Amino acid sequence: MIGEKIKKLLIEDEKTLVKPADQVAVVGVKNRLNHALLLLTTDKYAVVPVLDDQSKMQGLISMPTIMQAIMDIEDVRFEKLAEIEVEEVMDTNYPYVYEDFELEDVLNKLVHHAFITVVDIQGYFKGIITRSEILKGTNRIAHEFERKYSVTEKATVIQ
Amino acid sequence: MIGEKIKKLLIEDEKTLVKPADQVAVVGVKNRLNHALLLLTTDKYAVVPVLDDQSKMQGLISMPTIMQAIMDIEDVRFEKLAEIEVEEVMDTNYPYVYEDFELEDVLNKLVHHAFITVVDIQGYFKGIITRSEILKGTNRIAHEFERKYSVTEKATVIQ
Repeated sequence: MIGEKIKKLLIEDEKTLVKPADQVAVVGVKNRLNHALLLLTTDKYAVVPVLDDQSKMQGLISMPTIMQAIMDIEDVRFEKLAEIEVEEVMDTNYPYVYEDFELEDVLNKLVHHAFITVVDIQGYFKGIITRSEILKGTNRIAHEFERKYSVTEKATVIQ
Repeated sequence: MIGEKIKKLLIEDEKTLVKPADQVAVVGVKNRLNHALLLLTTDKYAVVPVLDDQSKMQGLISMPTIMQAIMDIEDVRFEKLAEIEVEEVMDTNYPYVYEDFELEDVLNKLVHHAFITVVDIQGYFKGIITRSEILKGTNRIAHEFERKYSVTEKATVIQ
């Protein structure tokens, strides 16, 4: 359970907590790795969601994953970039929450992941929640909480 | 100013807040881009610090930066990976704090950067502070603060 007053300040701006799907760079499952690499390079993202042709969430693709896919023991085989499809190498073990997520769940997952995918019950990609948004809330709490509220230690129960 | 009780819970484990230099993957200014690319691929980091031969902090290098350095209008010139030195293309405009940092400064910088470099007054690289560590603190505050403290709204001053 998350404290109510903390929660209020943490996600003061609830509307901006989820970055909506139409503002997130994505690639398609059938795209080749050279397309994904170009997108990641141009937009300077470390990792982006992979969607199928119905805009359902399927996985994540990152630059290290792409590079590993084209490396063999001897060398980097750059010509393979135009051959391999994103769905062949994407990471399908991605963190996600549904639209009616509990903030508690999001906070736990963001300790280990740079962003969390939001999907609806049918798996359609709805957006992402980033560490940056939660850190804005942490800043608000750090600066405003004890100015706004009187805080006193609760009495310890002696047994 | 950060509230004292919030701060205490946010960085409860002050010793683990800074990941020490010897546990951080880095590259040297004179390394070629192929070396940096291999390290980023193997360790799955998005970006790593660049140090000179005295272990002084000089910049950051990321996969998008490397890829941009070897792309021209027509094509990706992979043979250039073995020619270009990291210091020619690294990002020298990196966020950093000194060892006696204010947490306030760290929190502000982490909204915009995945990690903050810690250097001493001579510029020697001492470690990094990651978003993940601060998010562990945010989790502690969310779960424990209102269980530990009585919180009441302060009276508003009517003018």
